[in-house]
Amino acid sequence: MAPKIGSTHRRRAGGRTGKQKNIEPLQGPAYLKREIPIYEMLNEEALKKIEDNADAILEEVGIEFKEDEEVLEIWRQAGCDVQGDRVRFKKGMLRSIINATSPKQFTQHARNPAHSIEIGGDNMCFFPCYGSPFVHDLDQGRRYSKNEDFKNFIKLAHMSPWLHHSGGTIVEPMDLPVNKRHFDMVYNHIKYSDKCFMGSVTAPERAQDSIDMARILFGEEFLENNCGIISVINVNSPLTYDGTMLGALKTYAKANQAVIVTPFILMGAMGPVTLAGALSQVLAEAMAGLALIQLIRPGAPGVFGTFTSSMSLRSGAPTFGMPEPALGYIAFGQLAKRLGVPLRGGGSLTASKIPDAQAAQESADTLFPTMLAGINVVFQAAGWLEGGLTMGYEKFILDTDHLGMMHTIAKGIDVSDNGLALSAYHEVPPGQHHLGTAHTMANYKTAFYDSSTANHESFEQWQEEGSLTAAQRANRIYKQMLNDYELPPLDADIDARLQDYMQQRKDSFPDSNV
Amino acid sequence: MAPKIGSTHRRRAGGRTGKQKNIEPLQGPAYLKREIPIYEMLNEEALKKIEDNADAILEEVGIEFKEDEEVLEIWRQAGCDVQGDRVRFKKGMLRSIINATSPKQFTQHARNPAHSIEIGGDNMCFFPCYGSPFVHDLDQGRRYSKNEDFKNFIKLAHMSPWLHHSGGTIVEPMDLPVNKRHFDMVYNHIKYSDKCFMGSVTAPERAQDSIDMARILFGEEFLENNCGIISVINVNSPLTYDGTMLGALKTYAKANQAVIVTPFILMGAMGPVTLAGALSQVLAEAMAGLALIQLIRPGAPGVFGTFTSSMSLRSGAPTFGMPEPALGYIAFGQLAKRLGVPLRGGGSLTASKIPDAQAAQESADTLFPTMLAGINVVFQAAGWLEGGLTMGYEKFILDTDHLGMMHTIAKGIDVSDNGLALSAYHEVPPGQHHLGTAHTMANYKTAFYDSSTANHESFEQWQEEGSLTAAQRANRIYKQMLNDYELPPLDADIDARLQDYMQQRKDSFPDSNV
Repeated sequence: MAPKIGSTHRRRAGGRTGKQKNIEPLQGPAYLKREIPIYEMLNEEALKKIEDNADAILEEVGIEFKEDEEVLEIWRQAGCDVQGDRVRFKKGMLRSIINATSPKQFTQHARNPAHSIEIGGDNMCFFPCYGSPFVHDLDQGRRYSKNEDFKNFIKLAHMSPWLHHSGGTIVEPMDLPVNKRHFDMVYNHIKYSDKCFMGSVTAPERAQDSIDMARILFGEEFLENNCGIISVINVNSPLTYDGTMLGALKTYAKANQAVIVTPFILMGAMGPVTLAGALSQVLAEAMAGLALIQLIRPGAPGVFGTFTSSMSLRSGAPTFGMPEPALGYIAFGQLAKRLGVPLRGGGSLTASKIPDAQAAQESADTLFPTMLAGINVVFQAAGWLEGGLTMGYEKFILDTDHLGMMHTIAKGIDVSDNGLALSAYHEVPPGQHHLGTAHTMANYKTAFYDSSTANHESFEQWQEEGSLTAAQRANRIYKQMLNDYELPPLDADIDARLQDYMQQRKDSFPDSNV
Repeated sequence: MAPKIGSTHRRRAGGRTGKQKNIEPLQGPAYLKREIPIYEMLNEEALKKIEDNADAILEEVGIEFKEDEEVLEIWRQAGCDVQGDRVRFKKGMLRSIINATSPKQFTQHARNPAHSIEIGGDNMCFFPCYGSPFVHDLDQGRRYSKNEDFKNFIKLAHMSPWLHHSGGTIVEPMDLPVNKRHFDMVYNHIKYSDKCFMGSVTAPERAQDSIDMARILFGEEFLENNCGIISVINVNSPLTYDGTMLGALKTYAKANQAVIVTPFILMGAMGPVTLAGALSQVLAEAMAGLALIQLIRPGAPGVFGTFTSSMSLRSGAPTFGMPEPALGYIAFGQLAKRLGVPLRGGGSLTASKIPDAQAAQESADTLFPTMLAGINVVFQAAGWLEGGLTMGYEKFILDTDHLGMMHTIAKGIDVSDNGLALSAYHEVPPGQHHLGTAHTMANYKTAFYDSSTANHESFEQWQEEGSLTAAQRANRIYKQMLNDYELPPLDADIDARLQDYMQQRKDSFPDSNV
């Protein structure tokens, strides 16, 4: 089946139909391939200090693995010092385990092969946001998110040319029972998008349900040998893995499905208030999870996850888009490259409640360092508001346009003869304009990124069109997109089997909101 | 006299007085000293191609110098091929002239020595915006700027801890006659701020007036041997210098005062539509001006200026904050480092008419690459709206806060033992928080940048405080700052002599609006 990405977005979005009838449908790439190097901000000595510090934390303090005898036994077998739940690791041990078998790069398959993604190396993949219990738009303000919102954002992500993934718990479908939501979430991803998706981690059996549904979609044998589902495991920082997270990690690793091991640190709370300390801790915690995956199933795909932010010194509230975490993303890019595993981090983060200047500035100050770090898996890339508590419809549209711009950044500068344009100077004398030159005519269509949300008109024209803010333009675009959405075809037999599986499993235990 | 920078800004701004009585007055540095390397995005081969292309443009096409026989004679004496107004330069010639005597770094002196700045090397200086005929605030919208606005922005820049310079034509005082505005502008800078300032370039005699006023301030002998005034000369791209700009350039160079030579290029109009071509052209044009300065007065300070942006493919309107110019800033950082002269570029640019999400995103996408490039003179760093046609009061406040964040970015990551915080892990067992540790208590006050405009409160608290946008908070802050402004002391004799000079000169010729 042919990808339909964004086929109607650019053509009709933002009230441009009347003026721009002949703009071609916008196609985005399955994933972003970087042609620029990562920014080597820290020198060898500084990087080594952070790595040695991580090793010292692992050896001197260790990590606690709660409520999971199997995991403690795995560490004992590997030769660790295990006392109670506390496991201590010899210097360099975890890095060696990871280097031996953890893939540097792997493919996550989508049901539409044109949307399969490469995770690792010079590739970047933008995911929508994850986990918000609220949604926001200009019309209704902030309210609890529902399954309808969940579906809406899958549709919008499916249509966006600049999002490479359908995500996971894009928003919490608060109108569904907690212990059965994961069925609808996985099904909705499969049904309403043909991009890659994520599985549940809130209980080991929900992880297993996610895998079983992916097996129906991809076939058991295919899924045994390929990654069809990716999930995120949060470490209970500082230096603790709990039973729920370990259960989900083990379930996915045993099934050869990808796990993003993510220490979640607000500096000053779940880690020290200084950045180099927090970086060391994240590295230590992530290495433990990544090595554990390899001890459970050598070769199973793992991703070095990071989520490190700052706090308000006034209130202790989490802050996002601040300069300290920005420096952190860049350092993580260097640390992950040296460890040789794919990296997750960054995004379009903000503490703002609305899609205003604060939201845009903080998001940009997160996304630009994300690019410089070459982060492979970019969670929270579109929609995030209020420290992730809220998913914004207009924010989503503004963010995806911004992600499009990052595709241009990633290409770097073309220094071919055409790029250097010496011929143009022989065509145009000094003092004359280049507007109609052969070189301009040959290049102008692809020369510049064409923003779908920015207004570049004159003040008078902008005023005549209603003096709209960027958020107001985005409001129109998201509604138009939902209106234009087309369901990607899904094999009817697979669809029936998925629905059947869901119904049987849902009927097998009572609803609960735990 | 003691610097009073921002002494009241942080303490009283944004309605925080009641809650935060003991926050100390915020002091910014005289200029920003980078401790992070520039981002080496282009490799040696790519940089060489751009430099060779610039040389080819200079040799094969050349540059026109209009209405100035003296300049043509200077080029003839230097051995150039001069035909009519067209001057062609042998490969490498301009670079050699620049390398021989153009300073890599120089000091611009402020009347308050604590505010003197270092231009070049690892130093960055943030200037407010330049040249807007309109101002905007939330209360009155957009209107023509007046001398009152000009003074207001000088006061705000004086108080901001994150702006290092008072600027030049911050806004056009449209209520003053065109041919006499420069007197008031230079006087206002000297009177209402004790930071560095810029001179007029709109006519050679206005440049001379600016220098003469600086001589009154600094003393003739001091100014003969030191830089007390800096000015910006726009090249009439492509490949043309006009008589007005050459006249101003010569006037400042002869007086040993700093000139920023700035090719102004919208790609596709004043240069080719491809970035590598535009970069080559800017380098060629700027080298011509920089070398000319050295031929006029060897050792006089010159700055490699750049202003390169993209266009809307729909309307031909200029666009700002787009990814192509962002890549350009980074490349300029590398090219200027190789040329060995200070660089001007970047800023907080946007095409948006209002301080909304578009404005913030585009500004951030300009400012972050500005940091990566290590641009030494950052014009248009605060206030810019509508492609520079408008200076925004709220935008100014949002931008200066953002500039503050960049001071943290520039510091990089502290990997000292205190930064690495290993001791904290011995203090806090796994699973416990770091909120009250000795390490946190010792570091939290300086750990994180403390934004003056971002809201990090809970949704409920934010709502209770009026659900303000970032721009609405900035509106309150700018008014409070103007209310709190204190005139920096100025020697009464110097003040009288400056006023006297102005009056005599103003009386010596009739008003005109040309």
